[in-house]
Amino acid sequence: MLTMNFTEDKKSHLPLYRQLAEHFKKEIRLNHMADSAKLPSIRKLATALNLSRTTVETAYSLLLAEGYIMSQPKRGYIAINLAELPPTANKPQQKQPQKPAVLYNFANNYIDIRTFNAALWRRCINNALKEPENIAAYGQAQGEIKLREILAKYSYEARGVIAAPEQIVIGAGVQSLLEILIGILQPEHQSVALEAPGFPQAERIFKDHYWQVETFAAGKIDEKLPSLLLVSPSNPYKGSTLSAEERLALLHWAQHTNGLIIEDDYNGEFRYFARPIGALQGLSGGDNVIYFGSFSRLLMPSLRISYMVLPPRLLARYNASAQLYNQTSSTIEQLALAEFIAGGHMRRHVRRLRKLYALKNTLLRTALTEIFGKLITVRSYASGLHIRLAVRSQNTSEELASLALANGVRILPVQASAPKAEPEILLSFAGINEDHIRPALLLLKKAWFN
Amino acid sequence: MLTMNFTEDKKSHLPLYRQLAEHFKKEIRLNHMADSAKLPSIRKLATALNLSRTTVETAYSLLLAEGYIMSQPKRGYIAINLAELPPTANKPQQKQPQKPAVLYNFANNYIDIRTFNAALWRRCINNALKEPENIAAYGQAQGEIKLREILAKYSYEARGVIAAPEQIVIGAGVQSLLEILIGILQPEHQSVALEAPGFPQAERIFKDHYWQVETFAAGKIDEKLPSLLLVSPSNPYKGSTLSAEERLALLHWAQHTNGLIIEDDYNGEFRYFARPIGALQGLSGGDNVIYFGSFSRLLMPSLRISYMVLPPRLLARYNASAQLYNQTSSTIEQLALAEFIAGGHMRRHVRRLRKLYALKNTLLRTALTEIFGKLITVRSYASGLHIRLAVRSQNTSEELASLALANGVRILPVQASAPKAEPEILLSFAGINEDHIRPALLLLKKAWFN
Repeated sequence: MLTMNFTEDKKSHLPLYRQLAEHFKKEIRLNHMADSAKLPSIRKLATALNLSRTTVETAYSLLLAEGYIMSQPKRGYIAINLAELPPTANKPQQKQPQKPAVLYNFANNYIDIRTFNAALWRRCINNALKEPENIAAYGQAQGEIKLREILAKYSYEARGVIAAPEQIVIGAGVQSLLEILIGILQPEHQSVALEAPGFPQAERIFKDHYWQVETFAAGKIDEKLPSLLLVSPSNPYKGSTLSAEERLALLHWAQHTNGLIIEDDYNGEFRYFARPIGALQGLSGGDNVIYFGSFSRLLMPSLRISYMVLPPRLLARYNASAQLYNQTSSTIEQLALAEFIAGGHMRRHVRRLRKLYALKNTLLRTALTEIFGKLITVRSYASGLHIRLAVRSQNTSEELASLALANGVRILPVQASAPKAEPEILLSFAGINEDHIRPALLLLKKAWFN
Repeated sequence: MLTMNFTEDKKSHLPLYRQLAEHFKKEIRLNHMADSAKLPSIRKLATALNLSRTTVETAYSLLLAEGYIMSQPKRGYIAINLAELPPTANKPQQKQPQKPAVLYNFANNYIDIRTFNAALWRRCINNALKEPENIAAYGQAQGEIKLREILAKYSYEARGVIAAPEQIVIGAGVQSLLEILIGILQPEHQSVALEAPGFPQAERIFKDHYWQVETFAAGKIDEKLPSLLLVSPSNPYKGSTLSAEERLALLHWAQHTNGLIIEDDYNGEFRYFARPIGALQGLSGGDNVIYFGSFSRLLMPSLRISYMVLPPRLLARYNASAQLYNQTSSTIEQLALAEFIAGGHMRRHVRRLRKLYALKNTLLRTALTEIFGKLITVRSYASGLHIRLAVRSQNTSEELASLALANGVRILPVQASAPKAEPEILLSFAGINEDHIRPALLLLKKAWFN
């Protein structure tokens, strides 16, 4: 047994029990003792080395406290040798199915990188990093007050949202904010209706909390609806904003039933060829609407900062539990964003984006007409970052998406609005280069009609 | 009526209906038309201005579509004037109670800012910002693969955690990760036992999902426990790590009941005067433990990046729903962190922190003994960022905290372990300056014993 090699070092300043413990540590570190190897019992080792039982016992306690050994019922003391456990022991198989190369991407994941002024953003980040107190402390649970103050102003100017900074809650995306909202709406609210065709990421969060989730058509508001509705005017799967009549009907419903509307105003800033429509929240006077805004498409998707505006009637409830929800957004990025907006960069940036996207939108529609003629019908295009198309094809929209992908073009299928309707798809023009539009469409035509 | 001022501009290239619409827009913008002001009916206006009804109708449709007017049942068309709604209309009262000034802070919110190399971090951030694809796309839902790869290595080296990158999920804090975990554990799991004295932020999330939440003592593992336990070895409210026996009993329980343990290893890196104890996860072989790690105290609290390691048996479940949970951490900060760890900076940083905190810890204990003598007893100090004290006082720990705050010192009270026990408090040594320790303790003594 290796541990029998131990001999006392008379010249050492360490007490004997420490010497013995160090000896074991070395054995374990040098892999002379395997993981789970049994140590001799206290009595046996004391006899073998001619040491007192107290010395051995103290050495073992030290090893135990320092995590080198464990005491196991019936087996006694065993060694813990972390080095022996290979880090890949449980490595799951990396099965990567061969995916076709994507030459052109009309899917929902990109912004046009030319629109992003990285140097400017870097400056804002660096300024935020300069203040030691921004780094040393946990931020405010509700979000940095600097950002909430400027958001109150920005959301009013850009979207007609009526909000005091105290009503604004910052979070890393709509899902994080929904989690908090659900916490304060429960248990009074337990069901929600989502504007058709739905919003999978929100649905998931509600269902995780055992809520009833249904969908409703914005044109059909009736008394059978639950007292909480979620509308996504710029939901790409819908592809068109609410009409004035639909907006009015929603506000009317909220006023008359004292119901609540969650307004997901994702991409509300993007409306082309017409003046942007103000948020429902502002039209309602701020009482019946919980407003959600986001910067993922305005600035960059990698930035995880969204905000919600709580109506005054929910504030007491929120304040009572706010400290139990940690802030999810980076403090530094919150402060950088506050500076970016306060410096007027956001306004300029959105104006530039709107122009660029309007141009791409027009180019894409022109090319669609030229290349596809009557084989497609544009269903909507005037807002958001997508054009919605109906395709004169016997295929389903999922089949169209697969055919496209097999030819190197990624598009988004849309759930059919009616059983026998023409299949519909979405083309996002945000991330695609102008020069790629025509070759991409030619590939699509080949994939679908050759 | 103002709208009667309209006259056709014969030289304009705009069609008549557009001219009429522009006229209304100007009236609304210039505040000549109040919010909700009624517009003349189509018939009336056509007659008054001697225009065709189609012209007026088209102009109104345009205004409707562009959000300038609404059609209201029985009232007809009304103007929407956002500028009229004052942004402070619903501003809640800002009641800020007079708070006593905090001269010395022993509470849980700060790190020692001298430990943070802002220039180095800035370089990592700037490098991440250089790659356009990091900015343009939404990141990976599970977290950036670069970060997950380096975390697999880091967590093994630092904490003995056994993980392949595929098992690692990144998120903005423990709460965000718990949300995802709850989603994949439901509905089989519906109850959890938290290691006493509990963990309010985790409890909130479980209760939001209608889980049964109880607490348990790590020393008392029995068959009545639910099949999911959460342990926080470095929970500051507990103030002491698990003993070797407690760790063993937990692993034994998991193996024999096929139960799951959530190991919140917050501050697991901080153990002084002894070798850090490896994570339970590694000791279990990785099968029964869900490991949570965090960088808020290692690097900076403002950085919202945590990670969890899922055991292989939960992976299929996670992969099936991963796309429904958006990533909450900033891509740029994830990539900066990956570079920081890969460059060896994290290892050096933790080593430096450990030294500094061990020094402060010793200074604080020495000063405590000198100033308080037998009036206090140190209950635990060897890990985490707090010293836990029992105070020889008739006051409750909450009263001690109030007395301290009234004298300018912030401390954390601890829930009493037994009804008649001495009150206990926590002093965090992480954020306080060495030179402030003695004056702060003198103030505390005055607050409690004068």
